[in-house]
Amino acid sequence: MTMRLNLNADLGESWGCFTMGDDGALLPVVDSANLACGMHGGDPRVMRITVGLARANGVSIGAHPGHADLHGFGRRPMDLPPEDLSALVLYQIGALAAIARAGGWPITHVKPHGALSNQACADPAIAGVIARAVAAFDPGLILLAPALSALARAGEAAGLRVALEVFADRSYEADGRLTPRSVPGSVLHDPDAAVAQVLRMAAEGGIVARDGRVLPTPFHSVCVHGDAPGAVATARAVRAALLGAGHSLHPLPALLAGA
Amino acid sequence: MTMRLNLNADLGESWGCFTMGDDGALLPVVDSANLACGMHGGDPRVMRITVGLARANGVSIGAHPGHADLHGFGRRPMDLPPEDLSALVLYQIGALAAIARAGGWPITHVKPHGALSNQACADPAIAGVIARAVAAFDPGLILLAPALSALARAGEAAGLRVALEVFADRSYEADGRLTPRSVPGSVLHDPDAAVAQVLRMAAEGGIVARDGRVLPTPFHSVCVHGDAPGAVATARAVRAALLGAGHSLHPLPALLAGA
Amino acid sequence: MTMRLNLNADLGESWGCFTMGDDGALLPVVDSANLACGMHGGDPRVMRITVGLARANGVSIGAHPGHADLHGFGRRPMDLPPEDLSALVLYQIGALAAIARAGGWPITHVKPHGALSNQACADPAIAGVIARAVAAFDPGLILLAPALSALARAGEAAGLRVALEVFADRSYEADGRLTPRSVPGSVLHDPDAAVAQVLRMAAEGGIVARDGRVLPTPFHSVCVHGDAPGAVATARAVRAALLGAGHSLHPLPALLAGA
Amino acid sequence: MTMRLNLNADLGESWGCFTMGDDGALLPVVDSANLACGMHGGDPRVMRITVGLARANGVSIGAHPGHADLHGFGRRPMDLPPEDLSALVLYQIGALAAIARAGGWPITHVKPHGALSNQACADPAIAGVIARAVAAFDPGLILLAPALSALARAGEAAGLRVALEVFADRSYEADGRLTPRSVPGSVLHDPDAAVAQVLRMAAEGGIVARDGRVLPTPFHSVCVHGDAPGAVATARAVRAALLGAGHSLHPLPALLAGA
Repeated sequence: MTMRLNLNADLGESWGCFTMGDDGALLPVVDSANLACGMHGGDPRVMRITVGLARANGVSIGAHPGHADLHGFGRRPMDLPPEDLSALVLYQIGALAAIARAGGWPITHVKPHGALSNQACADPAIAGVIARAVAAFDPGLILLAPALSALARAGEAAGLRVALEVFADRSYEADGRLTPRSVPGSVLHDPDAAVAQVLRMAAEGGIVARDGRVLPTPFHSVCVHGDAPGAVATARAVRAALLGAGHSLHPLPALLAGA
Repeated sequence: MTMRLNLNADLGESWGCFTMGDDGALLPVVDSANLACGMHGGDPRVMRITVGLARANGVSIGAHPGHADLHGFGRRPMDLPPEDLSALVLYQIGALAAIARAGGWPITHVKPHGALSNQACADPAIAGVIARAVAAFDPGLILLAPALSALARAGEAAGLRVALEVFADRSYEADGRLTPRSVPGSVLHDPDAAVAQVLRMAAEGGIVARDGRVLPTPFHSVCVHGDAPGAVATARAVRAALLGAGHSLHPLPALLAGA
Repeated sequence: MTMRLNLNADLGESWGCFTMGDDGALLPVVDSANLACGMHGGDPRVMRITVGLARANGVSIGAHPGHADLHGFGRRPMDLPPEDLSALVLYQIGALAAIARAGGWPITHVKPHGALSNQACADPAIAGVIARAVAAFDPGLILLAPALSALARAGEAAGLRVALEVFADRSYEADGRLTPRSVPGSVLHDPDAAVAQVLRMAAEGGIVARDGRVLPTPFHSVCVHGDAPGAVATARAVRAALLGAGHSLHPLPALLAGA
Repeated sequence: MTMRLNLNADLGESWGCFTMGDDGALLPVVDSANLACGMHGGDPRVMRITVGLARANGVSIGAHPGHADLHGFGRRPMDLPPEDLSALVLYQIGALAAIARAGGWPITHVKPHGALSNQACADPAIAGVIARAVAAFDPGLILLAPALSALARAGEAAGLRVALEVFADRSYEADGRLTPRSVPGSVLHDPDAAVAQVLRMAAEGGIVARDGRVLPTPFHSVCVHGDAPGAVATARAVRAALLGAGHSLHPLPALLAGA
């Protein structure tokens, strides 16, 4: 049985003279891109350029808000009062949305970044704040959230369309969470391993944990990480494998519109 | 002859644990506030709080975009390619607009900050980039620009409503530009001096330079600087003096709507 | 019985155009100052100016290293690998020491700031890393550490002279730790309350917790916080009260040399 | 005629999760490294790691202080009062020196970075401030300065040993200054072009401008830029060519000690 799917990656994470990832090579390989919004990576210039590249590649874009932690790249959990967390998310969505709209390529989704995402996946209160901030900005936006997460549930509760994602290049624990980056093997650097994980998830109809357990769940999108070495090779391999297996790939708005 | 006028100040310039100005004391004294947007001051939390305070005081708000120069508080000129300058301005307007709308108190104007404003007042190319960025975000926004400036002319060329401002607490050169801050006496710390300057500008119908020359120009708004010591005292004195002289004071949207 | 004591405060915490505290007013009132080193506050210009002011007032100075968290003012706990924590501390001590020596007023002590201090007071491993970094930089430096803390013990283990401090304006828990700032009443804003706490600690020969319990300990220095509103009033009141009760006050090097 | 020379590169310019250059590949190819000190790149962790790598490769190290401009990577000219510029330089030298000494591999030279270097090469006042700051920190340090520059002259006037450098991968104007980066061809990306420029400078005994003019000057060190794409290839080619032509290569202290 074949699936209608989406391939997404985090892009636009460079900042100033500091280059991260290879956006130009990755953009032709994905269907949707999550763009950093200045707090953990990205700056107005990088955002403008990445919006333009995404448009040129027909790649749908979303805001990728993270903690205000440039030095830690948004990977350190931070505790904020709900109203401040909401403002942090609104700030970033609004900033990118303005640049994107002026660039003729409006944002169509939001996906939290790094520790903010991890916190939102585990904590319904944080998830609710984020989902309601997205809905307050524009209830037509898609929330791209990990399958089986509190964030996905919060998105539905907030009335948003939710696209469920699985990760090609990160291993899973038996409870459905990502294996922490501190655990060896948590990041699949080998494109073949990522391909195998994705194809097995498509075949099994759910997340496959590193202990082999299958957690049944629908999913719409497969994430490859743009900042990992070998990200482009992994993305290409996953794309080729999915298409080769008869699945089809679409930008998020088209995917959800056709669902 | 009495005038319909507006009193504006730069607010929300605190950042993290660093407090700048006394927003709580200044908000009840002004009609419109220009809120820092995170690049030279302000952060999402400060922006959210200041939006709420402005709403509670019935003070209309605008974005106060500046250079990406927190350490220099946006007071150092920087040269950016036009498309990057446009992205910088859009980023900041979009960020504040999102927080303000979610806070039930949408922004109604834009006023550039510090060196960015000074550059835009003198350089028609920079002014044009900024004005067109504002219009691209929302052509209904008011551009608050110094009277007699290239920025004011660019706003009109971009089809924006332009509110012309004069400064209560800054002295002017004979060409209509602000006396540089490096010149002694450029900032009027004495509330009485600020009151005298404002009343004379209202009486003369134009900017009064420090050599006494009058540069005739209409104006709509009087700016007092929120970050100066004594800002609150100056603002109160100017407000009282304007009202005492029979002028009326209004938030920017009401002022321009009634004009 | 009278004591030879020291009054210390955290100073030089302004950054760029953002002013924190009133260093000029506080410096004449204290014997030793802990200077921010650029990571949570302070910048090279502020450090240079504060060194000069301290020298003019005969106030001995020390480095006040904190976490690399300007936005959170170093008040958020952060977990670093030991070697990175050591580098963070060395960086800040070295930076201030260079400016201070060139200013003719070398640093004579080190006191960790904020969350870094709190972590070091509770965690012997973190305390050891910091104490050994100080000793590696200069074994002649004094470590200014809270009485009864793991940091004080680590300083002794590292062969440093340790000056034990108590806080005038922060309340204590029964286990000798500071009451968290999130607890109402944790900061004593009333100068009289601070004076009473200090005099009672001097009389009782130990820390007095907010439940009235006395934790016996020698101490050398009393800290007043420079960034609190009313800091100057509190410092003056504590100074006057200590001198009035017959205690004497000395800069840290003189205090320890004479002990 | 063969020369005793040195090959230097700017390293340790990564920051947080943002990687710049390929220090591990470049370190085995150079004799001396200029390490960023946190203001335009580098952070305490990166500095610690780079010091360790330099020690393992027997590469002498120096401080590479730049403007406080992380977003612009220190490439934008900034005007500071002399005493603030001095503090900025002292801060960075002191910070790195502390980490380096604790790492068992003390710094032996200083070389300003980017716009700060360009300003110091052209402006004797700025050059003097920097040279005197270096001498105030440690008169035994070597100043690594472009040949024919105001900075080199200021170093001599301050009593420092000065190592004169030429650039392998940057073209020169007829007045001996570097061609601005904004001019096409100003950066020699082709290793063969860099080799040809270096060999011709060694043969001609001076700087060869892009118009072919030779500006006679002694020089001690050849710089290759670590942040350029192809930096490693260029460095290897220049090293091989210099050794192949019979010149010898030495760390800066050994080079100047043997001169």
